[in-house]
Amino acid sequence: MHEIQVTVRFSETDALGHVNNTSYFIYLEEARIRFFESLGFGLDSKNWNYVLVSAKCDFVSQAYFNQKLLIKTYVSKIGTKSFQLGHDIISNETKELVARGNVVMVYFNFEQQKSEPLPDLLKNALQNFLVHS
Amino acid sequence: MHEIQVTVRFSETDALGHVNNTSYFIYLEEARIRFFESLGFGLDSKNWNYVLVSAKCDFVSQAYFNQKLLIKTYVSKIGTKSFQLGHDIISNETKELVARGNVVMVYFNFEQQKSEPLPDLLKNALQNFLVHS
Amino acid sequence: MHEIQVTVRFSETDALGHVNNTSYFIYLEEARIRFFESLGFGLDSKNWNYVLVSAKCDFVSQAYFNQKLLIKTYVSKIGTKSFQLGHDIISNETKELVARGNVVMVYFNFEQQKSEPLPDLLKNALQNFLVHS
Amino acid sequence: MHEIQVTVRFSETDALGHVNNTSYFIYLEEARIRFFESLGFGLDSKNWNYVLVSAKCDFVSQAYFNQKLLIKTYVSKIGTKSFQLGHDIISNETKELVARGNVVMVYFNFEQQKSEPLPDLLKNALQNFLVHS
Repeated sequence: MHEIQVTVRFSETDALGHVNNTSYFIYLEEARIRFFESLGFGLDSKNWNYVLVSAKCDFVSQAYFNQKLLIKTYVSKIGTKSFQLGHDIISNETKELVARGNVVMVYFNFEQQKSEPLPDLLKNALQNFLVHS
Repeated sequence: MHEIQVTVRFSETDALGHVNNTSYFIYLEEARIRFFESLGFGLDSKNWNYVLVSAKCDFVSQAYFNQKLLIKTYVSKIGTKSFQLGHDIISNETKELVARGNVVMVYFNFEQQKSEPLPDLLKNALQNFLVHS
Repeated sequence: MHEIQVTVRFSETDALGHVNNTSYFIYLEEARIRFFESLGFGLDSKNWNYVLVSAKCDFVSQAYFNQKLLIKTYVSKIGTKSFQLGHDIISNETKELVARGNVVMVYFNFEQQKSEPLPDLLKNALQNFLVHS
Repeated sequence: MHEIQVTVRFSETDALGHVNNTSYFIYLEEARIRFFESLGFGLDSKNWNYVLVSAKCDFVSQAYFNQKLLIKTYVSKIGTKSFQLGHDIISNETKELVARGNVVMVYFNFEQQKSEPLPDLLKNALQNFLVHS
């Protein structure tokens, strides 16, 4: 599994004293961008082949300012033109599950504005991270 | 259905030129807080009886800086201790669907740190917004 | 003076229970964009003639979730190629000063990547909002 | 000088293709929190002795998604009950100055809700990072 670590920033908390729900989606975006980079399919604004069509996060336990969170990323499904990523957000200290995310991405040709079959190179790279649930 | 309008802020866009996916969850939070207020169950940090246990958003079409978005909120499910809200985010101008959200909320006693059955008053209020899908 | 109202979103607060300092700069950006619109110099990503070269905010009193804030915008200085905007952020209920912002903007030709003298039309429009301090 | 590195997140950019001005204040907050930690005056929401009374950032050159930024933090002024921090935000690759921040902080007793003289221990720690401009 691919793994990154983030430390909760103060601006990511809210008046309930914990990490605001919207901040988890920042972490998921960060995790999937680093994941693509690690595959050799790094993104930049000029060369972007993915469309996020759905994002979901289940909030299991609370996280707090300054907490170190591990975000483990794996592939939860591979389709013809789309794939899904799963993310486990875990407290680095206690290894407790904090949140679990899942996103659906479509391979997209921005010039022609239409989805396209996943190139074999990407498909093979994703295959290595496929976790059967 | 309950309805609010937001105008996309510049800081909510990203380098792809459209609204960043994380910003939609800000809109969903805003919509559900206004919805609770309209029910007479307004929230403040001292009196917060809900826990968000899951949030999901399907991104259907893109939205842009300065666009006016309508967020329609309805109740998609009522359980014993939990309920779900659905949100349709719609372009105010074209009435095109931009995104569709769904969140799961648990009624929660923060003092005792445990979930509790929905009070009848809240249950009845939610009932009026229940949409059978 | 130009005036907008914002209601503090929950995601804009932090674990100290008040509005996070970074959120005030979101409000300032919102205020100046609406100000430019009101002048007939509305912005869109394809037609953007300003560069923000400095932003400052003095935090005078705290603001909280759900609070309604008035943001009054005026012109604090007009130069040849640049101008400054002042912003008073005020509690709508108590009229207490919450924060005071000041930004420096340069008129900028993005195609040629260089600053340019303010066009007369803009200069005159700004003049109407000039407040001598 | 104290130094941290941040990598620009995608959600921190805007539709102009660069880092949004509000994101720099997130970086400044991150830098000063790490700076306090390094001094042995780490912050947590229960033990917070500082009030930010002013924040300023001059934007010198643009930064972009995925760029690595160094944030150098130093003490720009020490008063009786307050002090100022300066921050140089620098491109890690080119060492070009991207932005320069300055914040004013007051030592504050939250229980009694009043400012207090800087404790000697803190004053001495700050002294080591004082840069005369």
